[in-house]
Amino acid sequence: MEIKSYKKDVEYSYTLGAFPTIELLKTRPEEVLEVYVHSTFTDTMTVEELAKPYGIPVMVRDKQINKLSDKENCFVIGVLKKYQDVLRADQSHVVLVNPSNMGNMGTIIRTAIGFGIKNLAIISPGVDVFNPKTIRASMGALFRINCQYFSSFEEYEGAYPDHEIFCFMLNAKRQLTVDNCPKPKLFSLVFGNEATGLDDSYLNKGTSIIIPQSEEVDSLNITIAAGVGMYLFTQK
Amino acid sequence: MEIKSYKKDVEYSYTLGAFPTIELLKTRPEEVLEVYVHSTFTDTMTVEELAKPYGIPVMVRDKQINKLSDKENCFVIGVLKKYQDVLRADQSHVVLVNPSNMGNMGTIIRTAIGFGIKNLAIISPGVDVFNPKTIRASMGALFRINCQYFSSFEEYEGAYPDHEIFCFMLNAKRQLTVDNCPKPKLFSLVFGNEATGLDDSYLNKGTSIIIPQSEEVDSLNITIAAGVGMYLFTQK
Repeated sequence: MEIKSYKKDVEYSYTLGAFPTIELLKTRPEEVLEVYVHSTFTDTMTVEELAKPYGIPVMVRDKQINKLSDKENCFVIGVLKKYQDVLRADQSHVVLVNPSNMGNMGTIIRTAIGFGIKNLAIISPGVDVFNPKTIRASMGALFRINCQYFSSFEEYEGAYPDHEIFCFMLNAKRQLTVDNCPKPKLFSLVFGNEATGLDDSYLNKGTSIIIPQSEEVDSLNITIAAGVGMYLFTQK
Repeated sequence: MEIKSYKKDVEYSYTLGAFPTIELLKTRPEEVLEVYVHSTFTDTMTVEELAKPYGIPVMVRDKQINKLSDKENCFVIGVLKKYQDVLRADQSHVVLVNPSNMGNMGTIIRTAIGFGIKNLAIISPGVDVFNPKTIRASMGALFRINCQYFSSFEEYEGAYPDHEIFCFMLNAKRQLTVDNCPKPKLFSLVFGNEATGLDDSYLNKGTSIIIPQSEEVDSLNITIAAGVGMYLFTQK
């Protein structure tokens, strides 16, 4: 199998680096096709121990690694079949509407897992969650989250009618503070596109909220707003 | 004056884009040398109105803009003299120890201003706060923060003995929650390098704290940890 640089329409993707590859092997071994290690990699044994029970081949492939990685410190690559998840109806969700930056999406996924939120809805159009850049930014946390694309917010909302919806918007009606954060059993935290945010139609979906911020900034970065929001909603 | 691509040892830097350039003109007009606008830019008047009272030349310079900017949607560039700030002793601080990523530093600066923290200490070695990449990631918030470099943490600590120090560390002694966040009059929130964090010597400096996080992630991204930390410490 000759792996080429990632494209959205191919059926596989890959992890760049030891940490996300080990995360992949621990959490989604059934999706792993093969693993490449660099001849100078010092911890091949860890990778082999995780791969062996599933019959995953681990091969020394310096050229492949150099070709696929744009950074010098990449010594391991895991090749995986793309898979499709379905969100859990009995757990809370993060919803990204038209995300346009793969690094930001990866960071939000890493943060979600860090705060125990294990379901991510993406409203199309949105960037590709399987792009190696997203996987790298997530530090492999992508493999621990259930991720599902929806063609519209209405489709998402209809599929999960029991979730209480909170839309993060600059012109929101309600300020989110440490003291007033709602704690419903099932929530959906909704964040808009990096450049445009959520449009005004979202003012009428669930509760619109804003993290109090100085007028000296245009807005918080989306990853920070999502981080603070996810932190507050997941604290007991 | 012929501006060349940025280097750390030159005496000027520049803002890429209308938003950070307008921030620069509003907050540090005395440091601005000149402003370039693209011939297709539609809001030259706003820039000229801000520049005129200070005698700052605003010039159409398509070639210069194309040369200095690596993105297509840059229509304005502001050239500024680098300046040196001193931290305010009567205000709280963020302290970055050996930051290595300019985008992260810019995001942290934007977040600090968003939460009303207006002083940033950088412990050397650390990336260049005046690099156009940092300025762009900060969305121009850099110009609203007092930023000062220190050769060691001890030098910083000695200069601001009245600040209560909080070091964000994975092996910290104390968990930071919404209910137990300390509220001293003057605080310093200390964050380590993106890859290595703060070394164990920081366990003995002030109070070491950690934002509770799942064991399913290695750590939170530094910008998220800083964002949640700054949010909690600045809430009444």
